[in-house]
Amino acid sequence: MILDTLHSPQDLRTLNQEQLLALAKEIRQAILQKTSQVGGHVGPNLGVVELTLALHYVFSSPKDKLVFDVSHQTYTHKILTGRAQAFLQKDHFHDISGFSSPVESEHDTFTVGHTSTSVALALGLARARDLQKQKHHVVAIIGDGALSGGEAFEGLDNAGAYAGNLTIVLNDNNFSIAPNQGGLYANLKALRESKGTCEQNYFKDLGLDYVYVEDGHNLDALIETFTSVKESEKPVVVHVRTQKGKGYAPAQENPELFHSLSGFDLETGEPAQTGQITDAAALFGRDTHRIIQAALQQNDKIIALNAATPGMMGFGPRERAEAGEHFLDVGIAEPAAVSVAAGLARGGAQPVFAVRSSFAQRAYDQIAQDVCIDSLPVTIVVFTGSLYAMHDVTHQGLGDIPLLSSIPNLAYLCPATPKEYEAMLTWSLSQREVPVAIKLPGVYEEVYGEQAGAKALAQKQNENDLDANVPSKAPGHPATPFSTYQVIDAGSRVAFLGLGTFLGLAQKAASLLEKETGIRSTVINPRCASGVDGECLEQLKKDHELIVTLEDGRVEGGFGQKVAAFYGTDDMQVLVRGLSQELLRKYCVEDLLKQNGLTAPQLVSSIQEIL
Amino acid sequence: MILDTLHSPQDLRTLNQEQLLALAKEIRQAILQKTSQVGGHVGPNLGVVELTLALHYVFSSPKDKLVFDVSHQTYTHKILTGRAQAFLQKDHFHDISGFSSPVESEHDTFTVGHTSTSVALALGLARARDLQKQKHHVVAIIGDGALSGGEAFEGLDNAGAYAGNLTIVLNDNNFSIAPNQGGLYANLKALRESKGTCEQNYFKDLGLDYVYVEDGHNLDALIETFTSVKESEKPVVVHVRTQKGKGYAPAQENPELFHSLSGFDLETGEPAQTGQITDAAALFGRDTHRIIQAALQQNDKIIALNAATPGMMGFGPRERAEAGEHFLDVGIAEPAAVSVAAGLARGGAQPVFAVRSSFAQRAYDQIAQDVCIDSLPVTIVVFTGSLYAMHDVTHQGLGDIPLLSSIPNLAYLCPATPKEYEAMLTWSLSQREVPVAIKLPGVYEEVYGEQAGAKALAQKQNENDLDANVPSKAPGHPATPFSTYQVIDAGSRVAFLGLGTFLGLAQKAASLLEKETGIRSTVINPRCASGVDGECLEQLKKDHELIVTLEDGRVEGGFGQKVAAFYGTDDMQVLVRGLSQELLRKYCVEDLLKQNGLTAPQLVSSIQEIL
Repeated sequence: MILDTLHSPQDLRTLNQEQLLALAKEIRQAILQKTSQVGGHVGPNLGVVELTLALHYVFSSPKDKLVFDVSHQTYTHKILTGRAQAFLQKDHFHDISGFSSPVESEHDTFTVGHTSTSVALALGLARARDLQKQKHHVVAIIGDGALSGGEAFEGLDNAGAYAGNLTIVLNDNNFSIAPNQGGLYANLKALRESKGTCEQNYFKDLGLDYVYVEDGHNLDALIETFTSVKESEKPVVVHVRTQKGKGYAPAQENPELFHSLSGFDLETGEPAQTGQITDAAALFGRDTHRIIQAALQQNDKIIALNAATPGMMGFGPRERAEAGEHFLDVGIAEPAAVSVAAGLARGGAQPVFAVRSSFAQRAYDQIAQDVCIDSLPVTIVVFTGSLYAMHDVTHQGLGDIPLLSSIPNLAYLCPATPKEYEAMLTWSLSQREVPVAIKLPGVYEEVYGEQAGAKALAQKQNENDLDANVPSKAPGHPATPFSTYQVIDAGSRVAFLGLGTFLGLAQKAASLLEKETGIRSTVINPRCASGVDGECLEQLKKDHELIVTLEDGRVEGGFGQKVAAFYGTDDMQVLVRGLSQELLRKYCVEDLLKQNGLTAPQLVSSIQEIL
Repeated sequence: MILDTLHSPQDLRTLNQEQLLALAKEIRQAILQKTSQVGGHVGPNLGVVELTLALHYVFSSPKDKLVFDVSHQTYTHKILTGRAQAFLQKDHFHDISGFSSPVESEHDTFTVGHTSTSVALALGLARARDLQKQKHHVVAIIGDGALSGGEAFEGLDNAGAYAGNLTIVLNDNNFSIAPNQGGLYANLKALRESKGTCEQNYFKDLGLDYVYVEDGHNLDALIETFTSVKESEKPVVVHVRTQKGKGYAPAQENPELFHSLSGFDLETGEPAQTGQITDAAALFGRDTHRIIQAALQQNDKIIALNAATPGMMGFGPRERAEAGEHFLDVGIAEPAAVSVAAGLARGGAQPVFAVRSSFAQRAYDQIAQDVCIDSLPVTIVVFTGSLYAMHDVTHQGLGDIPLLSSIPNLAYLCPATPKEYEAMLTWSLSQREVPVAIKLPGVYEEVYGEQAGAKALAQKQNENDLDANVPSKAPGHPATPFSTYQVIDAGSRVAFLGLGTFLGLAQKAASLLEKETGIRSTVINPRCASGVDGECLEQLKKDHELIVTLEDGRVEGGFGQKVAAFYGTDDMQVLVRGLSQELLRKYCVEDLLKQNGLTAPQLVSSIQEIL
């Protein structure tokens, strides 16, 4: 194998045309072999094999800096920079992350996982180089899908005003995770169709130089073009036309499916069964679509929104077509998604926006300002906000409680079960008073059966008929039928507040506690992470001496700390459990739970020490 | 006055050309009269008098929806929609806010204050209209300065893919707060110079229709153009050339100064003395520039960054020219500013980014991801993060502690005094390990003199020589010389943790407590809002029974709650004081302090109750 003979990217230059083509084949094979077994981003990576080869051929990483946007398309890059083994040998498959990672290699400039950042990051590197009078090259590689993100525009706009060496490679496969959304894509199409010659040119309009590469799988053309722009003294956009999934027919034919999957049959292209983690998100996605569809029967003003992850909320191509004007994908543009939702709500429609936990960070300002200052009835469903969800450091959903539970006027509801989620979402889609976010649990399980779900559903009957013991609306703390804590088991001495995912853990710990100490504790489903249910917490003072809070996320700035502060000047003891501030590149769920004392035995042990 | 005869914007259509021009004069006069006395956004509002008149002439608000970006330029709009009195009568000057406000008038569609949101908000309104088969018109009004914001791009890009009625008025006065930054502005210039005819057209690239108005102060031309596009069935950008400050020579000649000021002499145009609140921010701005300049003598890799508010950090036109490549303004593009800073840091430079507290929300994702996952040495200085700063609900700086104190790997330092700020910033500009944010106090005061400042300065001597009792670096909690709590007065029973602005209040309360009860309490300067100083808090358990935390910001998700959680299972009582979740449209500082128990007498009273 040619791969075995390469010790650094520079060795590429010792290969002739034939060898380079053979190498490209080897790389594709390695990618397919690995991803068919353990999954990954198939289509995106197959599409940039030649592009990446050409980059490493022309530029000299790590002296020259390569910044990959999102960086899910860095498999070839990793293969060429000392990590081929992680693609060739099953035992080493999990040595590397799915994204750019400086701890793996000096060839990876940043830990990246979120979209649209590459041009700005690269601009920073370029300016640092200038400031220190260094002489290397800086390259950003960004996909067409990522261009819809406002920060990509900001980067390009700033590059347009920058006078220095910077190459911006636009990998245009005419696709995001799903088809692209936005007027810009008509311009990209015109550019492709005119082979880069048409007058309308978004990049030139921002002051950037521009060249076009018609065949992004032609190594010669790529090498020639990169060489020609390499020494440019002002930023150049190299617009490269590629095909997602190139070299593997099933991926070429089904780009949305093969964007990312957890495994497939190499022969047939049939996707494998998804694993446990994906199941929870997939199940909640299916439920979300079902609940929205049902709500639409009562309320034709509902509109489901998404920022380029429609499949996540259960709206695949068929569902989107069915939904028509009741579904809107704004492209990778979370800030705009939230402001559009605010506009929809103000205009009398009923928007529901589904977003990944870590991507919600991108719209913090719009949530806090556009939605919440005027208390517009926008519903935001937060997916993958759990330690059970994606483990890669850039996509971890461990920070959404600190992110969303302290925004004035926002109710951050945390269902423990699918039925409870259904009740909350259905209610939120029928009310006009309250901005609501809903944190989906990390596991899909009816942990306490019909009881609580049915009770909450009953509460929804009448929009104006809020639960009798809904706390009076303290300013900044919106009232919802779910703002009161729900006692699942009434006991004494110890009360568990098991938020969302961890209601089940609370029940287990209570059970073990009784078994080991005879203490029959109270188990509560708090249901809401924003503010606290002061009445309930007051009442607990009568017969309890210890509250144990459990949350699926980091505790700093989170739910348990609110409860601890509530009891600040009381005798009540509060044990706050959740995740620490430690950012782990990746983790094993069981280990993480143990490290953070989130197992029943550990909880019981700690409780015994305290009492 | 013609103004007196108008009862609704529709009455404009009863006026002839001469009367409209006279009305424009009256409006300018009213704006100048008010702002010369009490300040405001002068230049931006003078520039859109005709534009706003024409909008209300052609469109029928409130049935037709007008969405003003930022909305600082809505004085004429407010005058025409029932709020003229707030400009004509001194007693009513403060009846209204400086921004769009639905609680004032149905003609204001949203509470707006942050930039670049108008197109997305308007798009939401338009789609809500379509969904409900309504027939009114929707108009977004955005300035050229706001176009640099990524969300504006996202809005325009989505509008380009939208098939419906939407008018986007681009108010182009070729200025942001300071001169515009970005390649796009060359395109806007070319469009202006070619009267909208040049081929290069950013808006057309995004799929939008486009018309140009050469003289944005010619009412006829504006009315004619708005009329011509009003019924368009796809979005149209109306690019209007205006002059900032039009009609008042001093404002025309000094657009940066007259963007916003707190008063001026109407005759001469001389700006008035700034009031107390501005003084603190202005003083810290001046200090920031001075500290950076001094640090640059030791380290030529330092670069000061800003997102269109250079004056705030003390970099006026002269300072910017002097700084050369050591200053970079990315335009209104906070996300890019942070990612550029990350790239600069990765590339060996030493970036310091100054940003308003509420604007920092716009870059949460980039701070958490690009800066903090790789622990890049970026320094972020947070201005106006205080209840003493700007009171308008959209610009309040009351949420930066919840925003920034729980991000893994970020040290959120809170100096109490100017000297301490200098020590912290100077240290941060000399280190390569830690992402640092610094929250400027709300008042500029040496509350405890030389002592602490000098001690901290001494600690900076050697980058690697951290204070002996710096807590061992717990993962996610970066160590800095300021991560330990500083005991200002050692006492017993009660300990005040007066964070930042409120160290002074802590001292006052301690003093009053001693006077009234004889208790000699401990006063501590915590210095850091992220994490807690566990060692110190442990030690306090010996001789204290009550901790009182004071923070200049909302307590939910904040500093005091961390301290309360630390003592969760101890006997220690913790009283957390700061601001509630209540969002106030505006407030009086003294009232707000009282409402939240943030006065020395109230604290002493509460303490006595608790003990």
